[in-house]
Amino acid sequence: MKVALVGVTGYAGMVLYQLLKSHPAVDQINLYGHDLDHAVPLYEAVPQFGPTEMTPLHPYDPAAIQAANDVLFFATSAGVTNTLAAPFIAAHFPVIDLSGDYRLKDPAQYTKWYHKTPAPQAALATAHFGLADFANAKGQTYVANPGCYATATLLGVAPLIQQHLIVKDSLIVDAKSGTSGAGKKLTTMTHFTQTNENLQLYGINTHKHIPEIMQAIHQWDPAIPALQFSTTLLPITTGLMATIYAKVAPGVDGAAIAEAYAQTYQDDFFVRFTGEQLPTLKQVVGSNFTDIGAVYNPVTNTVMVVSVIDNMIKGAGGQAIQNFNQMFGFDESAGLPTTVALP
Amino acid sequence: MKVALVGVTGYAGMVLYQLLKSHPAVDQINLYGHDLDHAVPLYEAVPQFGPTEMTPLHPYDPAAIQAANDVLFFATSAGVTNTLAAPFIAAHFPVIDLSGDYRLKDPAQYTKWYHKTPAPQAALATAHFGLADFANAKGQTYVANPGCYATATLLGVAPLIQQHLIVKDSLIVDAKSGTSGAGKKLTTMTHFTQTNENLQLYGINTHKHIPEIMQAIHQWDPAIPALQFSTTLLPITTGLMATIYAKVAPGVDGAAIAEAYAQTYQDDFFVRFTGEQLPTLKQVVGSNFTDIGAVYNPVTNTVMVVSVIDNMIKGAGGQAIQNFNQMFGFDESAGLPTTVALP
Amino acid sequence: MKVALVGVTGYAGMVLYQLLKSHPAVDQINLYGHDLDHAVPLYEAVPQFGPTEMTPLHPYDPAAIQAANDVLFFATSAGVTNTLAAPFIAAHFPVIDLSGDYRLKDPAQYTKWYHKTPAPQAALATAHFGLADFANAKGQTYVANPGCYATATLLGVAPLIQQHLIVKDSLIVDAKSGTSGAGKKLTTMTHFTQTNENLQLYGINTHKHIPEIMQAIHQWDPAIPALQFSTTLLPITTGLMATIYAKVAPGVDGAAIAEAYAQTYQDDFFVRFTGEQLPTLKQVVGSNFTDIGAVYNPVTNTVMVVSVIDNMIKGAGGQAIQNFNQMFGFDESAGLPTTVALP
Amino acid sequence: MKVALVGVTGYAGMVLYQLLKSHPAVDQINLYGHDLDHAVPLYEAVPQFGPTEMTPLHPYDPAAIQAANDVLFFATSAGVTNTLAAPFIAAHFPVIDLSGDYRLKDPAQYTKWYHKTPAPQAALATAHFGLADFANAKGQTYVANPGCYATATLLGVAPLIQQHLIVKDSLIVDAKSGTSGAGKKLTTMTHFTQTNENLQLYGINTHKHIPEIMQAIHQWDPAIPALQFSTTLLPITTGLMATIYAKVAPGVDGAAIAEAYAQTYQDDFFVRFTGEQLPTLKQVVGSNFTDIGAVYNPVTNTVMVVSVIDNMIKGAGGQAIQNFNQMFGFDESAGLPTTVALP
Repeated sequence: MKVALVGVTGYAGMVLYQLLKSHPAVDQINLYGHDLDHAVPLYEAVPQFGPTEMTPLHPYDPAAIQAANDVLFFATSAGVTNTLAAPFIAAHFPVIDLSGDYRLKDPAQYTKWYHKTPAPQAALATAHFGLADFANAKGQTYVANPGCYATATLLGVAPLIQQHLIVKDSLIVDAKSGTSGAGKKLTTMTHFTQTNENLQLYGINTHKHIPEIMQAIHQWDPAIPALQFSTTLLPITTGLMATIYAKVAPGVDGAAIAEAYAQTYQDDFFVRFTGEQLPTLKQVVGSNFTDIGAVYNPVTNTVMVVSVIDNMIKGAGGQAIQNFNQMFGFDESAGLPTTVALP
Repeated sequence: MKVALVGVTGYAGMVLYQLLKSHPAVDQINLYGHDLDHAVPLYEAVPQFGPTEMTPLHPYDPAAIQAANDVLFFATSAGVTNTLAAPFIAAHFPVIDLSGDYRLKDPAQYTKWYHKTPAPQAALATAHFGLADFANAKGQTYVANPGCYATATLLGVAPLIQQHLIVKDSLIVDAKSGTSGAGKKLTTMTHFTQTNENLQLYGINTHKHIPEIMQAIHQWDPAIPALQFSTTLLPITTGLMATIYAKVAPGVDGAAIAEAYAQTYQDDFFVRFTGEQLPTLKQVVGSNFTDIGAVYNPVTNTVMVVSVIDNMIKGAGGQAIQNFNQMFGFDESAGLPTTVALP
Repeated sequence: MKVALVGVTGYAGMVLYQLLKSHPAVDQINLYGHDLDHAVPLYEAVPQFGPTEMTPLHPYDPAAIQAANDVLFFATSAGVTNTLAAPFIAAHFPVIDLSGDYRLKDPAQYTKWYHKTPAPQAALATAHFGLADFANAKGQTYVANPGCYATATLLGVAPLIQQHLIVKDSLIVDAKSGTSGAGKKLTTMTHFTQTNENLQLYGINTHKHIPEIMQAIHQWDPAIPALQFSTTLLPITTGLMATIYAKVAPGVDGAAIAEAYAQTYQDDFFVRFTGEQLPTLKQVVGSNFTDIGAVYNPVTNTVMVVSVIDNMIKGAGGQAIQNFNQMFGFDESAGLPTTVALP
Repeated sequence: MKVALVGVTGYAGMVLYQLLKSHPAVDQINLYGHDLDHAVPLYEAVPQFGPTEMTPLHPYDPAAIQAANDVLFFATSAGVTNTLAAPFIAAHFPVIDLSGDYRLKDPAQYTKWYHKTPAPQAALATAHFGLADFANAKGQTYVANPGCYATATLLGVAPLIQQHLIVKDSLIVDAKSGTSGAGKKLTTMTHFTQTNENLQLYGINTHKHIPEIMQAIHQWDPAIPALQFSTTLLPITTGLMATIYAKVAPGVDGAAIAEAYAQTYQDDFFVRFTGEQLPTLKQVVGSNFTDIGAVYNPVTNTVMVVSVIDNMIKGAGGQAIQNFNQMFGFDESAGLPTTVALP
């Protein structure tokens, strides 16, 4: 297949490009920069790729993209595809969008959380929220790839919510992520001297991933009223942990919880339930796996769930490939790393 | 004053010794090793003090300690003072004990959580739990200095509990600490290659600080049934954050919460309430301060509190000095660092 | 091909196994533990591989290894193959040995630097020192894979020495490496609290890689008398930098140096000369590349060369695969990562 | 004494202010911002000082500074005191200048290395280069405080050069520093994702500290022709190591070298010679000490010296205080930390 990628200069795009290069079904990757006026070698735009990477990065041209490719990945920031995606949707051209612009069905929600102009509601309606371990993208033409925090959180809470194991208004997520999630932009918060040997909270009760988490949760149980959700910046580059707490519903115990997770994920290659052994970041970083452990505490009648992912792979480019594989009928794990960064 | 210190070779003892050296009321510090049979220069036992530190580390001798000093600090591991402290208690000799051995009033609780033989109940009854910003150690002879996690957690939750602002069974603490809290012992978990770029949970529902937190909470409100508490090892050396969540009681709002914190800590030099600005670790590491921020979320009716300390100072040696200051009537902040490690 | 691996539980073996799993010419990998008495699932021996990795780790049995495999990789510590390799050498069975036991031709040198009993001189004579970008392993049966420091240093100095560009007694190497090079063993030096925010030198003038570097240099120019070589432990997990200094020979200038590097490595896919742009660690970590930059300083008449590798890949498992590829005529880069860990 | 400080918002100024606050001879510290037009509380300008730090930061006013203070510290960037210092010099008002503007005696050198307009040559001539362990600032009115790299390097090489122990054109310094040395400015090089798990070289053969090192060396031995000097950015916040190599002069051996260091620094409280035990960064970070170790290698006839400092203390604010102490006759160590950051 011939694959177009817009946004290779951002961290998510960089990782996605690297994964696409080793995908067995991808013959050709064409790179486009949405703000370029002439082609540049990739190495110049992204030195991390090394001096031998001379693939051209072309100016953005929707017609040329459609003519030369079978599918388009957008790895752009919020506020780009809300305006650029329209012609592709109109032409039913396959798109996988890693940004948040098409994740929310309700334009008003987008305005509220992103403070930007939403895509048209009709266009939003065509998008498939690609939480790949739950929703198969087969036959879809526009996939909105979930956010990193949303992915770890939703995979962590799904069995609890789908099987009504918890008190509905008791869900709390204490999430932590490395700096790669904050992107390339230079900020005081990600200045080494400030980040190193520190913990910094951000986006309290205002994080953009909250509404997509709630939207997905409501598909599973409309009676869940809300989600207490916080994010903490870790002094590491890669890795995301969602630590989840909820009161357990009457009659539920640890065995029932373990059974729910085991059953939910028994056929999911990329989700590993580790029982009461709570996972570490390093056991997933470098791979497309989500590892989830759960411990029920009878003293507090609370379940604690820990869900970990590589925020750049499962939380961005890897899940995008998983959606691509589903969309076009490739093996679920084609092109996806199944071993972690060692040691 | 002449001060004895047992346990200078551990991290807490090292930091305590350093603080004592700059305390204006301390004329002499005598060091003792509880497992030595002859004196050694401190530099040999703890190279971090540098080649000029030749103060002798003496073998342990309770009679000599009492004869030569006015007060004794124990910075020993759990399971040492439960046997060594008796003669000092019998003699009403002033002791500040940084270990957990005298924190719990109920010997059965000690056995349950520490898996060791408790000190006699009568001896435990004489000990003062030295949460220095709440309980003044004036006139006490045996101070049990609180644990690091207990300190950050208790200062973080006190206003909520004392003023009955939360739903009583809803308290959750997601705590994180650097590796200095894990001590000098070589373990796989604290091997650099394992700790770096990682997060690891430990002691889930079994952490030794849980019972002392509950014991203190019950002094404030016996109706709080339990505490959901977890600990995560951070890839940093120093700093501890307790992220606290609780459902808010009917009729309570953000203003009431802010008012409770502001009022509780208005006269506490070492506790700074930062309002809705949640504190970072670096704004306290190097100092004896506890910084606490709180954000009420009306959507979830949940309050999120973040309490940060330097686990080696406020969480160990610094609070021990604060108790020493109270015990002997020195200025509360004498010898205690009030500026952070910069930059 | 069917491949045997002894030593998968060490860091080098772990990385090598991971690379072998994605090698296009490897059909089967059989794992052996040289100190096991019964088979165990790999996941139990090395949890980092994740719970789905149930490949058995077999007890060591030389006859069974030869019967079931086409080639054997030893990723064992120094002092193992000096006794275990003999039957394979006798049988002309292909071996790639990542340890230092067969790198030195002179048994007396091995004794001097390793303080262990050397392999027999005749056996040592059959071994090929596999500095893969200089010595092709085609037709060899026993490859001694170079050490990590030796690899970065030798690739860094080769053009200078081969083309007689420097003053012969002026070579200085200031090398730095992450903790993965120090292995799994728990030591005070690699305890997180000691390693983090620190630099520690070790093995000054006694590092085991010094003799293999000198042995290789003497192949190129026997007149180089010695090498000043130091190693510093970095507070990072992966990556190795050799910073090299030498006085430049009369008549040599920056252009001549650049020309020598460019020419030497023009056909080496895995060595990239970056000119006066000195490379960073991150531009190679995750890949099998060696990046080398060189700056001539006319004021001091000194050339400074910086050579960087991923110590676990190019410095261990990756170069072993490169040797494997040469040995059996596969494409030089088969199974080897050519993109770095991003971002 | 009443002390003025200009530049408290930069890292060096922040640390200096902290040290001045605990100096026994300093009664009052007045802060000035050279680019302010109205007073602001320090906490607003530098949140790291914490919410209780309300000391006003005044607009810059040379007359007011002289009227209200006994001495002035400039902790400004290069290119500020070259224009601002003139009225103080004219008035013989005591100044300690942490910037590089008055370190070089030759205005042409300043222009060459700083690419800025130098202070007038007559003004430069009045400045004392305050390498405090060699040059006593008693009676001086304008002290140019040395750079961090210059301090570690000069203390490391002094005995070798003063006692003519090395081959004069063989001096090489491989220096490494944490990010605090790079200041507050946001740059790609100091973005956490770029700095972490990385090593980056910078300023090769162009570092501004080279000329002040050579100027000082020439005071000791005008026959030293030049210095090969490189700087590497470490993934840590604080600490600086200069690793120094030189060929040893005929007849010199390890004992002679050790004797030279021991003798040179026998009366220097703040320089500790550690013999063949090469120092780590952590054994000085947090203190004003310089630790120096030296190992002579008879095989290469080379001496390797490792000199470590806290770049913010000995390399900036601490040495400034040491100069202040000398200038006004206070005890050499007054107000200076003599214990390291533990653990």
